[in-house]
Amino acid sequence: MVLEVAQIDVKPGMEQDFEAGVAKGVPIFQRAKGCMAMELQRSIELPSRYRLLIRWDALENHTVDFRGSADYQEWRKLVGHCFAEPPAVEHMNKVVEGF
Amino acid sequence: MVLEVAQIDVKPGMEQDFEAGVAKGVPIFQRAKGCMAMELQRSIELPSRYRLLIRWDALENHTVDFRGSADYQEWRKLVGHCFAEPPAVEHMNKVVEGF
Repeated sequence: MVLEVAQIDVKPGMEQDFEAGVAKGVPIFQRAKGCMAMELQRSIELPSRYRLLIRWDALENHTVDFRGSADYQEWRKLVGHCFAEPPAVEHMNKVVEGF
Repeated sequence: MVLEVAQIDVKPGMEQDFEAGVAKGVPIFQRAKGCMAMELQRSIELPSRYRLLIRWDALENHTVDFRGSADYQEWRKLVGHCFAEPPAVEHMNKVVEGF
């Protein structure tokens, strides 16, 4: 399992459009190969900053399968116009399970 | 519910010490007031970068209750010596539930 952390700064005033676009995009991730979970978090300290947290079964489910799919283009159509700059995307592995 | 995202860059070579310190610190968070969940994620692209994801019932459970507790000093003793620089801490609210 890999956690994708996408930090997304949106253009000021586009917050509601962005949140609506992500909500519309949920089914895209539900049908994406290897996509196990997603949620959108909004910063309290910087309200134009979001983090999209997506759990993938394997790294390639994001970098190869999803980014190479027609659904990726659909997703970008829903939210891309809200981005203030390109999202900063990282992938992470859980190393302490916690609780 | 608030998600704390703490981005922690550790000194090169301190990765195993840091992960062991976080594992030892799990009971500190289990007994912290309002702490609902925690996990430690490690970056694939930048292996000295971690994100500690902690879910708190309320913002003040972190900023007031935890940071003002003796357990906070215990926690810093476990991991503070591994930090390359002060952690970058943000708090976030879930705005799209996803799945």
